[in-house]
Amino acid sequence: MSSEGEISSFFESSPPLKNMEEIVEKLNQFINWNFSWQGGRRIVCVTSGGTTVPLEQRCVRYIDNFSSGNRGAASTENFIKAGYAVIFLYRRGTCQPYCRYLPDDPFLECFEFPDKTNNIQVRASHLEAVKMAVMDQQRVAVSERRLLKLPFSTIYEYLQMLRLVATALKDIGPYSMFYLAAAVSDFYVPWESMTEHKIESGSGPLEIRLAQVPKMISILRSNWAPKAFCISFKLETDSKILIEKATKALRKYKVHAVVANELSTRKEEVVVVSSSGNVVVRRDCDKPESIVEDNLIRIIVARHSTYIIESQLLIPSTSTTV
Amino acid sequence: MSSEGEISSFFESSPPLKNMEEIVEKLNQFINWNFSWQGGRRIVCVTSGGTTVPLEQRCVRYIDNFSSGNRGAASTENFIKAGYAVIFLYRRGTCQPYCRYLPDDPFLECFEFPDKTNNIQVRASHLEAVKMAVMDQQRVAVSERRLLKLPFSTIYEYLQMLRLVATALKDIGPYSMFYLAAAVSDFYVPWESMTEHKIESGSGPLEIRLAQVPKMISILRSNWAPKAFCISFKLETDSKILIEKATKALRKYKVHAVVANELSTRKEEVVVVSSSGNVVVRRDCDKPESIVEDNLIRIIVARHSTYIIESQLLIPSTSTTV
Repeated sequence: MSSEGEISSFFESSPPLKNMEEIVEKLNQFINWNFSWQGGRRIVCVTSGGTTVPLEQRCVRYIDNFSSGNRGAASTENFIKAGYAVIFLYRRGTCQPYCRYLPDDPFLECFEFPDKTNNIQVRASHLEAVKMAVMDQQRVAVSERRLLKLPFSTIYEYLQMLRLVATALKDIGPYSMFYLAAAVSDFYVPWESMTEHKIESGSGPLEIRLAQVPKMISILRSNWAPKAFCISFKLETDSKILIEKATKALRKYKVHAVVANELSTRKEEVVVVSSSGNVVVRRDCDKPESIVEDNLIRIIVARHSTYIIESQLLIPSTSTTV
Repeated sequence: MSSEGEISSFFESSPPLKNMEEIVEKLNQFINWNFSWQGGRRIVCVTSGGTTVPLEQRCVRYIDNFSSGNRGAASTENFIKAGYAVIFLYRRGTCQPYCRYLPDDPFLECFEFPDKTNNIQVRASHLEAVKMAVMDQQRVAVSERRLLKLPFSTIYEYLQMLRLVATALKDIGPYSMFYLAAAVSDFYVPWESMTEHKIESGSGPLEIRLAQVPKMISILRSNWAPKAFCISFKLETDSKILIEKATKALRKYKVHAVVANELSTRKEEVVVVSSSGNVVVRRDCDKPESIVEDNLIRIIVARHSTYIIESQLLIPSTSTTV
């Protein structure tokens, strides 16, 4: 487990967030709006996509984690459907909520201006996908103000933004959730030991020594937002070690559940590993439109409800938690 | 310089392209259409975006090169304007021709369905950008068939596809051009020495040993498409070594020009380095819409014209070149 010293030295050596004040203001407005709305909406922070690790300070090369962001986007839609407000902390350029059915090249494929005027038309084949991307997304993000999208690229941005979100959500205690689906780098080059300029090619093989990124989930659980419901993810390519590693992570980081998924089957099934046992969650094979997140979020939301009730029973009435 | 042995062993150990036959068919149709169109259009292969280097065979982590693809997209539009047909070999997810003015989140920002029917509308603030992305792109790519888009992700896909394009363009000789703006990885992990599963975290620092990617420009020039006009790029973060390195590359790879650019000023100016001297190319500062590619492509096209004329003077009439 990472020591607090390692964690604070990671943050001290990180390049500072450029738009921190703007993010904090957006977060506070979003949380106030949603938590005061008709007695309070639950708020989940969904993290999505992979983080990058720069290899050079003036960055040309970096290490990245493969992650389309599909899991985070689909889960966000399901949390919204279940009545939640969602802070979507996502890797720039990855899959967006309500946009999963758009083709790869939407401006080439979805539209036409049939009479060369300003009257754009959507091709019939893509009408449902475009309506979802425009109407559903705008309703949720703009009219209802239930979706706040915050983009990151590097591991430095991601961890600093996660800390801001956790701090902003602290006051709403068990009504908040962290659903940590982002693929976070395990290794990085500490900023101060990084070369300033582009690494020169042409002089034989290159050796890179990478340090471990301190695990932030422990400090999220213990300090940043100790009363929030917390779900983490474990992705492996080898099914033999998957459940064992997920179970270890559950104990080590004291999260409420770990969603275990294997790279090749992750769209068909996942396993929710928790102290009450392991539950295999599959998509409904008889419904072609069904995705594994439909059933996964149903289970997670039910467990969050139980957690809120139990927290209320346990908490003395003098507590500040609602 | 890379030996032919290194190059052929790189290709032999690469995971094979999945849709090779489809790509070859598309290429041949595109080249035939354009080269037989009214006596023959010039054809340029513009490469764009960065290549990835997988660190694991069932890839979760990879090394990437920073590149938005903006240079390649803007250059493509200018080549089209100059009458060329363009094979746009681009990194999946990077900037597309005619889409440079769209906002980051176009489906949230550009459109509305005002009366909840099927009549979509473009917001006035984004009308020009959307018209360009839809009308100009479709005119060029679909009606005129002057733009063929081929996506890649890994260094293995990129180099195999570049070889296919070069081979397909061989017959049109000096009328073809390679404009190699992609940021190609210098280092990689040879496929056969790569770990199959996800590298385990949690066991201290990680050391990665990377081999050099053999330089393919030499073999592109000498074997794949020796009569094509060839432009390569050199990006550095340190302006002090930039021109020296570009000049070295010019001699080493025997390309017709090297476009030298520095990371921090690359949108303002570049230097065209060639055997006839170095030319600084800037954007027109008095026109706010102007980009450096407007002037850069004007120079490159003029040089290509000279090259074609000189090739015709040099080539005996029995040559197959038109």
